Amino acid sequence: MTDSIRISVDAMGGDNGPRVVLHGARLALRERRNVRFIFHGRESELRPLLEGFPELKPVSRIAHSDNVIAMDDKPSNALRRGRGNSSMWAALESVRNGEADVAISGGNTGALMAMATFCLRPMEGISRPAIAAIWPTIRTDIIVLDVGATVGGDARQLVDFSILGAALARALFDQETPTVGLLNIGTEELKGHEEVRDAARLLAGASGAGFVYHGFVEGDDIGKGTVDVVVTEGFTGNIALKTAEGTARQVGAYMRDALRADPISMLGAAIAGQALQALRRKLDPRNINGGVFLGLNGIVIKSHGGTDEIGFKAALGLAYEMARSRLIDKIGEGMRRFPALPAEAPATPEPEGNPA
Amino acid sequence: MTDSIRISVDAMGGDNGPRVVLHGARLALRERRNVRFIFHGRESELRPLLEGFPELKPVSRIAHSDNVIAMDDKPSNALRRGRGNSSMWAALESVRNGEADVAISGGNTGALMAMATFCLRPMEGISRPAIAAIWPTIRTDIIVLDVGATVGGDARQLVDFSILGAALARALFDQETPTVGLLNIGTEELKGHEEVRDAARLLAGASGAGFVYHGFVEGDDIGKGTVDVVVTEGFTGNIALKTAEGTARQVGAYMRDALRADPISMLGAAIAGQALQALRRKLDPRNINGGVFLGLNGIVIKSHGGTDEIGFKAALGLAYEMARSRLIDKIGEGMRRFPALPAEAPATPEPEGNPA
Repeated sequence: MTDSIRISVDAMGGDNGPRVVLHGARLALRERRNVRFIFHGRESELRPLLEGFPELKPVSRIAHSDNVIAMDDKPSNALRRGRGNSSMWAALESVRNGEADVAISGGNTGALMAMATFCLRPMEGISRPAIAAIWPTIRTDIIVLDVGATVGGDARQLVDFSILGAALARALFDQETPTVGLLNIGTEELKGHEEVRDAARLLAGASGAGFVYHGFVEGDDIGKGTVDVVVTEGFTGNIALKTAEGTARQVGAYMRDALRADPISMLGAAIAGQALQALRRKLDPRNINGGVFLGLNGIVIKSHGGTDEIGFKAALGLAYEMARSRLIDKIGEGMRRFPALPAEAPATPEPEGNPA
Repeated sequence: MTDSIRISVDAMGGDNGPRVVLHGARLALRERRNVRFIFHGRESELRPLLEGFPELKPVSRIAHSDNVIAMDDKPSNALRRGRGNSSMWAALESVRNGEADVAISGGNTGALMAMATFCLRPMEGISRPAIAAIWPTIRTDIIVLDVGATVGGDARQLVDFSILGAALARALFDQETPTVGLLNIGTEELKGHEEVRDAARLLAGASGAGFVYHGFVEGDDIGKGTVDVVVTEGFTGNIALKTAEGTARQVGAYMRDALRADPISMLGAAIAGQALQALRRKLDPRNINGGVFLGLNGIVIKSHGGTDEIGFKAALGLAYEMARSRLIDKIGEGMRRFPALPAEAPATPEPEGNPA
């Protein structure tokens, strides 16, 4: 790793165009000086935009690519059409060939995952990559994965996700042995479907693997921060994530309505203005923007497509932290420490050797 | 149906004992005069407690049963041990034999579902019963099901849940043709697992079935109130429900912390006290207590086991509304209106004839 963190940016990804991306990069640069950017996209669009952000110019390079992956492209189409000549692909390639430490895109999630898997390849011993969310809780931030890369998934995959999530917790929170819980509909052994019960048995036998297996956790344990890493397959994880986002917005709306109900409430709200402002910032989804693709030979951050420069800045900050904390090395380390799994799952190679 | 709504109560269910149950019943009686109660449980315990609630005495009857199903009994054990002689079973039997219009219990959910299914039997044409939650949203209350009766489930089951949920919406909200959405991880046709995509195809072809199929909805559509009925299998639904509960509590805790941060904020909060009090009531999970078992030949309400008299009163209110609005008739009606399903799912008989 060089002195600066080198971030490869798909400047064309997202709903709001490259201006938001560059603006976010300027904000991120102000917070962390030792960053360099490669902006992938149409040079004719990016060049004049970059002129508008003079601070960025000395630390930025534009790398031209013709194509842009649309937000509604099917992953298979994106891969066929966009391999080699799209800004999304080029952003990933910069990580593969060592030009950058981390890639980021606000584009189509399915296409990004398909391309990232194709370009960077799954780490040895990992059957399927996952998307991890950093989830604020009452206690502290925790990791929840998978929030949308997979649909369904067997016990072995849930074990992989545990190793990946624990490595992310070690990298991001400097926790030596994070606790891992399997998301389920009850904490008793007999609850849930077979995959989750099988995964529990595999995890219970794996001490010293760089994390402590806590057992099953339920949906409300996420917000409580009961464990450092919550593991589930991507269908449930995505729905949990979006349900929580929806609920936070809903409660925020209730709060606004209540405090505007009458002049007295409005007066009170005005007096408590600073506290409410801080609360609003805390609930602002832009400040917790960014999913981490885990299980690939390279770090990829997915920014929310609809976010603005504040949100993109937050995702860039996450990308920076991931690269700085040597996430990939920590995952490899976690995999070496995890005991070889029983032969039940022979389709995936045993975690051996350095997966980086 | 008689003039009064007759509620059969498992007085021994729940974590907090029969006093909370009777106290809740007194509060419910104050809100709705035309109720009668049958309290099932140990007469030696219930008789002296009832003496403490003189208002209840004229409208209540105690029906003795020896056994109590423990909160941690496995459903199969509960069914074996508790059939015939437990307060939970007896509460359900009162509905089966026509003594009561609706049964309610705060006991063990798995045991209650197993016993209710055994005692009341699934309605003709319904493969598996579901638990529906009444979910407050920004727009209005909506129905979400299944929130925990099933794990996994095929397309046919999701169609059944749509019919059941729509009937509940018609009964509870007086909506003529509620909208139904399938919970998924995206709104595009190709998203999600096979079951949910197959269910979408079946529902899209079913117009005039007493509801309008809206399409896929995502987790954040629940809190927005995008549709009147959100349908999913029980694993995902339970996790969505508990995640939302956890998030609401989390945001509530943030709010309290913010408004106690310093004297100025505390002053503002004191001035806006009434508005904040109303908000607290709105977020109080006790006021939205009660899951509805759907798809059985009888109405059963599950109260949260850990609730107090306020929560139990809310669940009794729900039981009352379900009985008053002739839920079972409305479900039968919905099933007759739903077009016969293709032969793909021959295991379940076609919905024909009056399932009540």
